[in-house]
Amino acid sequence: MSKNKINTSVLSGFVELLPQSQFAFDTIKSVVEQTYKNAGFVAIDTPTIEKSEILFAKAGGETEKQVYRFSKGDNDLSLRFDLTVPFARYVSEHYGDLIFPFKRYQIGKVYRGERAQKGRYREFFQADIDIVAENNLSIMYDVEVISTIIQTVSKLSNMFNLGNFKVKVSNRKIWDGFFAQFGIDDSKKVESVAIIDKRYKFKTEDDFNMELREKIGDEKIFNLAIALLKIEYIPNVGISIPEHHYNDFAFIKDNPVMKEGIQELETVMKYLPLSNAEVDLSIVRGLNYYTGTVFETYLQNYPEFGSVSSGGRYEHLCDYYTDKSICGVGGSIGLSRLFIPLIEEGKIKIDTPMTDIIIIPQNENCYATAMKIQLELNEKTNTKVTSIFENKKLKKMMEYANKINAKFAIIIGEDEIVNNSFTLKNMTTGEQQTFSSVALIKTITKALNK
Amino acid sequence: MSKNKINTSVLSGFVELLPQSQFAFDTIKSVVEQTYKNAGFVAIDTPTIEKSEILFAKAGGETEKQVYRFSKGDNDLSLRFDLTVPFARYVSEHYGDLIFPFKRYQIGKVYRGERAQKGRYREFFQADIDIVAENNLSIMYDVEVISTIIQTVSKLSNMFNLGNFKVKVSNRKIWDGFFAQFGIDDSKKVESVAIIDKRYKFKTEDDFNMELREKIGDEKIFNLAIALLKIEYIPNVGISIPEHHYNDFAFIKDNPVMKEGIQELETVMKYLPLSNAEVDLSIVRGLNYYTGTVFETYLQNYPEFGSVSSGGRYEHLCDYYTDKSICGVGGSIGLSRLFIPLIEEGKIKIDTPMTDIIIIPQNENCYATAMKIQLELNEKTNTKVTSIFENKKLKKMMEYANKINAKFAIIIGEDEIVNNSFTLKNMTTGEQQTFSSVALIKTITKALNK
Repeated sequence: MSKNKINTSVLSGFVELLPQSQFAFDTIKSVVEQTYKNAGFVAIDTPTIEKSEILFAKAGGETEKQVYRFSKGDNDLSLRFDLTVPFARYVSEHYGDLIFPFKRYQIGKVYRGERAQKGRYREFFQADIDIVAENNLSIMYDVEVISTIIQTVSKLSNMFNLGNFKVKVSNRKIWDGFFAQFGIDDSKKVESVAIIDKRYKFKTEDDFNMELREKIGDEKIFNLAIALLKIEYIPNVGISIPEHHYNDFAFIKDNPVMKEGIQELETVMKYLPLSNAEVDLSIVRGLNYYTGTVFETYLQNYPEFGSVSSGGRYEHLCDYYTDKSICGVGGSIGLSRLFIPLIEEGKIKIDTPMTDIIIIPQNENCYATAMKIQLELNEKTNTKVTSIFENKKLKKMMEYANKINAKFAIIIGEDEIVNNSFTLKNMTTGEQQTFSSVALIKTITKALNK
Repeated sequence: MSKNKINTSVLSGFVELLPQSQFAFDTIKSVVEQTYKNAGFVAIDTPTIEKSEILFAKAGGETEKQVYRFSKGDNDLSLRFDLTVPFARYVSEHYGDLIFPFKRYQIGKVYRGERAQKGRYREFFQADIDIVAENNLSIMYDVEVISTIIQTVSKLSNMFNLGNFKVKVSNRKIWDGFFAQFGIDDSKKVESVAIIDKRYKFKTEDDFNMELREKIGDEKIFNLAIALLKIEYIPNVGISIPEHHYNDFAFIKDNPVMKEGIQELETVMKYLPLSNAEVDLSIVRGLNYYTGTVFETYLQNYPEFGSVSSGGRYEHLCDYYTDKSICGVGGSIGLSRLFIPLIEEGKIKIDTPMTDIIIIPQNENCYATAMKIQLELNEKTNTKVTSIFENKKLKKMMEYANKINAKFAIIIGEDEIVNNSFTLKNMTTGEQQTFSSVALIKTITKALNK
C-alpha cells in the first residue's frame, strides 16, 4: 500500500466481521431478541451517550477508569458502559408513563476501554432483560428473569451445539446475614466475599481455603462459611444444610436477613429446571448494586468464557435519580464476548443462506425482465434475491453466484424472454428446470416459503 | 423531586421513546431491514468509534465541527457521523475478502453535534445500502440502489399511509460538463451549483433566478442553465432538451462529460417506475464525494421533512485508504428524522400487539402451572406471552392486562388446575372460553400463528 494512504485497521480492542460472520452474529442476535420478546419483554433504546454524572452515580473505581469520557460544548459526556445504569435512569425519568411491573429488553452496544486482551472487546453487544416495579417486586420475577435466560441459552445451545450449561444461583442476603451474625465489619465482609467470589479462580481448593481462613481469622466462622458453600437445593425438600452442621446453623431462625435469603433462594430454585440450575453460594457478583438473588451461567464445554450470562436483584439502583422506591431484577447475555470468538473459530454454522436467488440477465436486453422478476419475487415471496448486471460470459457470472452461495439461479437470455421460458438452476444439486415466468415465481414461492 | 437527585432527562438533541413508540420505531426499522435483505443486500456492522484521521480524510468544514471527537490513551477518536465513510474504510480494509460487486446494508446510529433544533437529532439512525466494485460498476447498480429505495419507501408509505412520494434524480456530470463548456472556474461552479441545490428553498422563483443570474454573471449561460433545469425524462424517448433550445445545446455532442451524464441519467430513468421517479437537475447534494448519479426523495404530504432518502454515485471515496480503484453507489434513509416525529405525533399506527397473551395465576398455588403453560406457548408458538405474579385481586390484574394491551388473557385458579379447564379471555371482545391445557395451546397456536 502507498505510504500516503490512511491505515484502515479497526482500533485495538474493537472488532468488525466479514459478511458471512456478520450474518451468523445477526442470526444469533435475532434469536435472542425473539426469545426475549416472546417471554414478555418489550424493547427500549437509550442514547449511547449519557451525562457523566448519570453513569458515575454508582460506578466503582475500575469501571470509572474504563469509561470513554469527553466534553462537547459545556457537557461532560460518557459512552454507556452497560445497559443497566441507563435503564435505571430511563425508569426514573419516565416513571409516570410506564406500567409496572415493567419488563423490558435492550440489546445494544456498550463501551469499556479495558486493557486489550483476548476475548475482551472495548465495544460489545449486551442483551439485557429487566423487570422493575415500585416498592415491591415478587421473588417470582427473579424466577422469570433466570427462566428466560435459561430458555434463551438453551435455544442457542441447541441451535449451535454448545452442549450443557448451568446457571449457578445464590442470594446475597445469606452472606450479609452470616457475617453480621458474627459481628464482622463491612470492610472485612467485602474482602471475604471477594475471595469467595473468586473461588474457582484459585489453582487448588487448598489455596482458596487458606486465603479465606486467613481473611476471616476465626476457625469456627471459617468452617461455617465452608459448610455454607456446600449447601444445595433438594427438590421437594428445599435448601439443605449439611446434616452435621444442623446445630451450628441453628442461629438462622433468629437471623431474619439470612433466613430471607435462604427462603428466596429456595423459591427461585423451586421453579427453575434443575437440569440447568443449581445453588452455588460462591456466586457473589462484583458489581455493588445487587441486593438479593445473583446468578452466573457457565457452558460446560467452554469454561474459558467464564460466565456468559449474569444478573440479579437490585433494590436501590434508581435511588440516585428519584425519590420513588424502585426495585428490579435483571440479567444480561454477553453476546459479543461469547459468540464473536465462536464464529471466528468456525464453531458456529448457520444453515440459512445469505442469498436465496440470484438473477442473471445475459445482456442489456434482458435487464428490464430481470428487474421485473426480482421485484415480483420481492413482492410475493419473503426471499433474498440479488441480480448481477455485468457484460461478462455466463460462466463468470455463475462463478459469482457460487461465491455468494446463492441457493438458486435464474438465467435470463433473449430467447428465454421471447419464449417465456426461464431456467431455474438449483446451485446445490446442479439440477435445472424451465418455467414460464408465472410458474417460476410459483415454484420459488413454494420451494422457499413453505 | 429532592434536590440531591440527579436530573434524568436525556441530553439536548438526543431522544428516547416510550415502549409503545419504541415498538413502532422497531417495526419500521425491521421493515426497512427485511426489504434491504430481500433486495439482495447483506448486513455489515462497523465500530461506532473510528480513528479521527479516517473520518476526517474527506469530511468538510461543517461536518468536522459537528463531530464528537475525543482522546483515550494516545488515540484521537471520533464517533461516526455517517455510515458511508466507515464503509469505505471497511471495503479498503477487507478488500481481499469481499466478493464484488459487494452489496451491503447497514442500519446504525450516527452522531452529529448539530445546533439543537426541531427535527434534528444528535444521535440518529441511518439505514444505508451501497454497491461497490473494483474499477468499474455498471450504471444498472445506480438503478438497483434507487429502485430498492423506492421499494422500501413504497412499503413504508403503504403501511403507514404516508401518501405519494417522488425520487428526484440528477447526474453531477451534466453540471460539470456544462460549466466546463463555458470555461467557468471551479470555485464559481461550486458556488453556482450550491445556489441550484437550494432552488426550492428560495421564497420565489424570481429570487432564485436573481441570485443564480448574478452568480453566473453571463445572461446567455444563465438562460441555458435555467433551460437545463427544465429537462425531463420522456418514456421511450429519453432526456428531452426544450425544443427552442435544440441549437443552443448542440455543443453537448462534443462535450463527453455532459453527454455521459445525460446518457447515465437516461439509463437510470429508463428502469425506474415513473410514478415514483422524475428528473430534477436542481438536485446536487452538498456532500463533495458524489461524482455521477445523485438523488433525493420527497414525501408529497410532508414537505417539512425535506429529503427523506438521498444518495448517489461516488468513484473516489476509498482513494484515501487504498490504491485499489473502488467505485460505489449508495443511498440512505433517515429513519430517525422521518419516523420519530411521525410516531410522536401519533401519525403512525402499529396493528401488531406488543403482548399477545397474558397469563394470570390467581395465587401462589397456580404459579407452577402458569410457568408451565407460558414455557409451552413459547416453545410451540411464536407468540409474545407475559405473566403477572401478584397477590392482588383478579380485577387489579385484569386492569394490568388491559393497560399493556394484551390480546388474550389466560386466568389460572386452583379449580382450573384441578379440573384441567382454563379460561381464555379475548381482551378485545370480552368473550371467554374454557379449554383443557392441551386444547388451550392448540387454540392459541391456531388463532395467532395462522
